[in-house]
Amino acid sequence: MSVDERREQLIAVALELFSRRPPEEVSIDDIAAAAGASRPLVYHYFPGKQALYEESMRRAGQELSTRFEEPMEGPLSERLHRVMGRYLDFVQSHGPGFAALLRGGSVAASAGTSAVIDEVRRSAQDQILAHLAIPAPSVGLRLAVRAWIANAEITSLEWLAERSVPLEELQLHLVQEFVASLTLTAAREPALAAELGSFFADERPDGPTGRLVRDLAGLFAVPGIAEAVTALATGTPDDGSAQATGTAADTSTGTATGTAAE
Amino acid sequence: MSVDERREQLIAVALELFSRRPPEEVSIDDIAAAAGASRPLVYHYFPGKQALYEESMRRAGQELSTRFEEPMEGPLSERLHRVMGRYLDFVQSHGPGFAALLRGGSVAASAGTSAVIDEVRRSAQDQILAHLAIPAPSVGLRLAVRAWIANAEITSLEWLAERSVPLEELQLHLVQEFVASLTLTAAREPALAAELGSFFADERPDGPTGRLVRDLAGLFAVPGIAEAVTALATGTPDDGSAQATGTAADTSTGTATGTAAE
Repeated sequence: MSVDERREQLIAVALELFSRRPPEEVSIDDIAAAAGASRPLVYHYFPGKQALYEESMRRAGQELSTRFEEPMEGPLSERLHRVMGRYLDFVQSHGPGFAALLRGGSVAASAGTSAVIDEVRRSAQDQILAHLAIPAPSVGLRLAVRAWIANAEITSLEWLAERSVPLEELQLHLVQEFVASLTLTAAREPALAAELGSFFADERPDGPTGRLVRDLAGLFAVPGIAEAVTALATGTPDDGSAQATGTAADTSTGTATGTAAE
Repeated sequence: MSVDERREQLIAVALELFSRRPPEEVSIDDIAAAAGASRPLVYHYFPGKQALYEESMRRAGQELSTRFEEPMEGPLSERLHRVMGRYLDFVQSHGPGFAALLRGGSVAASAGTSAVIDEVRRSAQDQILAHLAIPAPSVGLRLAVRAWIANAEITSLEWLAERSVPLEELQLHLVQEFVASLTLTAAREPALAAELGSFFADERPDGPTGRLVRDLAGLFAVPGIAEAVTALATGTPDDGSAQATGTAADTSTGTATGTAAE
């Protein structure tokens, strides 16, 4: 093996081990043994376990970012659905080792690993904003995208610990939560609201958005819900409730406060 | 000062300093000076800066958890709105020093600080589930609550860095996002859907939920949106889109897949 080949092999072996176990449970001896190399040889290439761990993380981050790439074709929710399939596949195969790091309780956390995680999050946000193709995305939209990424991280980490629902459900729900978050943001931002029609028009009945719309329609068929929501939409605020939310009422930027539901 | 008083004073002074600056910018000398004590005296009470930092964190976590407590009275969204007001007030006053820790890039992160953060998150989740008063909350509901807590954390940390919108807006939006998340979860969980009617019935027109409903009603008045959404609700899935989401269609647990919007 050439010097470069050996280095790459050690990183690949380390990534494999660090993907399955937390860093404190992987030793340089484990890595050397799995690579068929001697301990001194590993140290010849890397100053220590932390350096190898950080390099593995960088590779994992690069691989993950690659999975976010998706052609700019077809309904947005279906693009995101495909990306989430690849993301959750990554979580399933690499997550066990990186869970502690993402949760913030890892002994191996460092400025280097934080930079990698930030980079992956930024790459996810950039990809989503690129697909949304909104010129000059607002602060609110950026925040919503960032918060949804946190949702995806936390939800998949919790899933990893319990595996309590099928992965396909998680994949669908996360995409639908993104659609809901986009809709909510549009409800308070007129500029985004103007773009939302073409988003929905491009969606298909059996895609994640279509199914979400039908699930919500079904929810409103449950006794009591439609009546209560209609009362809220058409109701006149009374003094007590006006007091309850205080001055926040004045700072809301909704497109339609006061417009009654049809 | 008694021994206990001195110890409490040192913790209070440290908490104040660690709230404003990241731990690496606070020295034992700074703490001693602010407490009007000598450096050896500080070391008499605490083995070092890390121990004092962790104790400050524990106190901050306890204080934060106290702010989550809210009487079980009135519309749920208004209770959460009040809690979020106290939470965001805490973020504003203590956040600058703890931001790096919550973001996962702090040199002061340790098993101790992680335990405190986990404890605060668990306390937030417990409080929310207690207020929802759903007997035996499902995995999906627990996940939704946990994800919303992550949303609140990330959103408030991003806000702290940029302060780009009024805090009152953030407070209202986070509450409305919780309502949206609850609604979305109910759309796929019949047991929760059965509870949702009384949730909406208790809400008031001028509360966060009422305003959300009117903002969404306004959104559907924007040209193109209602038509596109109605088409999704009533549309017949075509072969192409059915393929796009694959077998996930079968695992969805929605209450109403196939029920057309009225």
